[in-house]
Amino acid sequence: MSPLHSAYPWLEPSKPPVVSAPMLKIAMGELALAVSRAGGLGFLAGGFDLSSLTKDLAETAKLHADNPISQAAEGVLPIGVGFLIWGSNIDLAAEALTKFPVAAVWFFAPAHMPDLLPWAKMIRRVSNGKTKIWVQVGTVGEALEAANVDKPDVMVVQGADSGGHGLVRRAGISTLLPEVSDALAEQGIHIPLVAAGGVIDGRGAASALALGADGVCLGTRFLASHEAVISKGYQNQILHVTDGGVTTVASTVYDVVRGIKGWPAHYNGRGIANRSYMDSIAGMPDEENEALYKEAMKIGDAGWGPEGRMTTYAGTGVGLVREVKAAADIVAEVRNDAVAILKKRADEWGEK
Amino acid sequence: MSPLHSAYPWLEPSKPPVVSAPMLKIAMGELALAVSRAGGLGFLAGGFDLSSLTKDLAETAKLHADNPISQAAEGVLPIGVGFLIWGSNIDLAAEALTKFPVAAVWFFAPAHMPDLLPWAKMIRRVSNGKTKIWVQVGTVGEALEAANVDKPDVMVVQGADSGGHGLVRRAGISTLLPEVSDALAEQGIHIPLVAAGGVIDGRGAASALALGADGVCLGTRFLASHEAVISKGYQNQILHVTDGGVTTVASTVYDVVRGIKGWPAHYNGRGIANRSYMDSIAGMPDEENEALYKEAMKIGDAGWGPEGRMTTYAGTGVGLVREVKAAADIVAEVRNDAVAILKKRADEWGEK
Repeated sequence: MSPLHSAYPWLEPSKPPVVSAPMLKIAMGELALAVSRAGGLGFLAGGFDLSSLTKDLAETAKLHADNPISQAAEGVLPIGVGFLIWGSNIDLAAEALTKFPVAAVWFFAPAHMPDLLPWAKMIRRVSNGKTKIWVQVGTVGEALEAANVDKPDVMVVQGADSGGHGLVRRAGISTLLPEVSDALAEQGIHIPLVAAGGVIDGRGAASALALGADGVCLGTRFLASHEAVISKGYQNQILHVTDGGVTTVASTVYDVVRGIKGWPAHYNGRGIANRSYMDSIAGMPDEENEALYKEAMKIGDAGWGPEGRMTTYAGTGVGLVREVKAAADIVAEVRNDAVAILKKRADEWGEK
Repeated sequence: MSPLHSAYPWLEPSKPPVVSAPMLKIAMGELALAVSRAGGLGFLAGGFDLSSLTKDLAETAKLHADNPISQAAEGVLPIGVGFLIWGSNIDLAAEALTKFPVAAVWFFAPAHMPDLLPWAKMIRRVSNGKTKIWVQVGTVGEALEAANVDKPDVMVVQGADSGGHGLVRRAGISTLLPEVSDALAEQGIHIPLVAAGGVIDGRGAASALALGADGVCLGTRFLASHEAVISKGYQNQILHVTDGGVTTVASTVYDVVRGIKGWPAHYNGRGIANRSYMDSIAGMPDEENEALYKEAMKIGDAGWGPEGRMTTYAGTGVGLVREVKAAADIVAEVRNDAVAILKKRADEWGEK
């Protein structure tokens, strides 16, 4: 059992918690519910434009009502919702979460950590404390500030291998997670830690647990799930691209070409290095790059990947993703393999 | 037992192999021998200027003769030697290794992978196959090329969290190690993998083993060992700097200011972000930055760290290093803790 099991009673009790990340426009109700139904915890991406959140949650509630998860608390959807705080309207969030209470919210990317305070207050008020607060951090400094200022129920520690947005300067979970864990322990703070960034399969999950994580969060792996809302072109690239340390790159160009403004300057996003990126580092003006992106949108599935211009966010572990599977199978495989690997490696050493 | 134990019979048999990295000018005979004597494998840094290698090995041989490791093969020093291939003279290497055969050589940073071929031939010839060949790689592509072209006995897989030099673009070990392992297995190639970059303590070691590593290599941790040849100013910074994802940075400026020319363009080095770095990104001409570095050399121990100009190479895990210890204690702690952590995490899950 982990500290997370008591808060989310549908989590598979004898295995480590597996969480799916709130990937913008990709992780919607179907994926989130499939993960929770498999004994994990799925997050729906609220993003920064919350105008459709109430509708999205209504659809998810209907899907859930058709086949409810029996251990879920009455009146609370057994999923989480992710918010990109820098661009989110708190009133729209309050409206959606009052109508459709959820088990957890995940706050990411406030311009400043204290910006989360009114959000935490609002969530606790509208849910009567039933909605747990997750805060994503990328450095030891952020973790200490979030723990002391925002007092989250869970902290997501995101390492540098993650796909999509993250801090420009940060470490991988190999060093970040243990240092966050030590820093919190030294201040007598106990918050469950979920490792994100670089976990793709049972090996990554076992590795994160060995570092001290209480659960693991996968994003890139779920891009190749049946339930992800993702174009075939994007998904095919996830299956085919290998050697993500070289073939992906963290950059702000993917926001630039899509006209997304508002990310705080200390964030960028990791995706497959493509023509937008190559042109950008070769000095192409942003306007021209954006125009070429708009042209490329017309070519459909061929627009993704290294030779395309469509943004193909993915973590450095993209090469470990080889097959599209049902989200439930991914969840079960990751947690079963993680436990088997820990047992196997433990048995190899020490007194026989 | 790991595949490494048979080649290095003094390795602690019931525990995972712990290796110390050949850190330039810092990891010399005393550190390498202390690590091997503790049942690990220590590497002496040959570097790229091999003019003193014979002398360094002579001193190490004398240290060893004073208190020999009983399991070492007759006439072979139970340590390894690291070479920066781009700048190393093969004749000087052959001369030193003929006079003082060692258990292993570690090849790093050839301009191109096939440049290692004459080195591998030379080593096998002068040592009659007694000296094992380790090759360091940083991507899946490099691993496949090295495996097929150079056929090393061991591969060191270096992730992005490492201190000192590494590839400009690469992943952390969380994703790099499993993908290298899969890619080799798919080609039917079996080479033991040693994880480097981000391993500081037992947690990092357990994590690397869970990812599939056969052994772990530590660099930054040994900067704070009694046997490291390191100035007090440098070592103090290793103990005091935290949050390495933010406070360290990978850059070429540390070679620039020290006038070190010759590193292939696809490498840079991770160190504590200091005045040299800040001035460089603010646009200071290299000559001026180099001159300021030379001035700063005169101020002694105060010249290191974020406010100094002395190069303070360190990995992102620098914040996990809190105490100077004997190398033997580091080796024992890391391997004992790693096994204990694997057992503890394995016992938490599954059927009781």
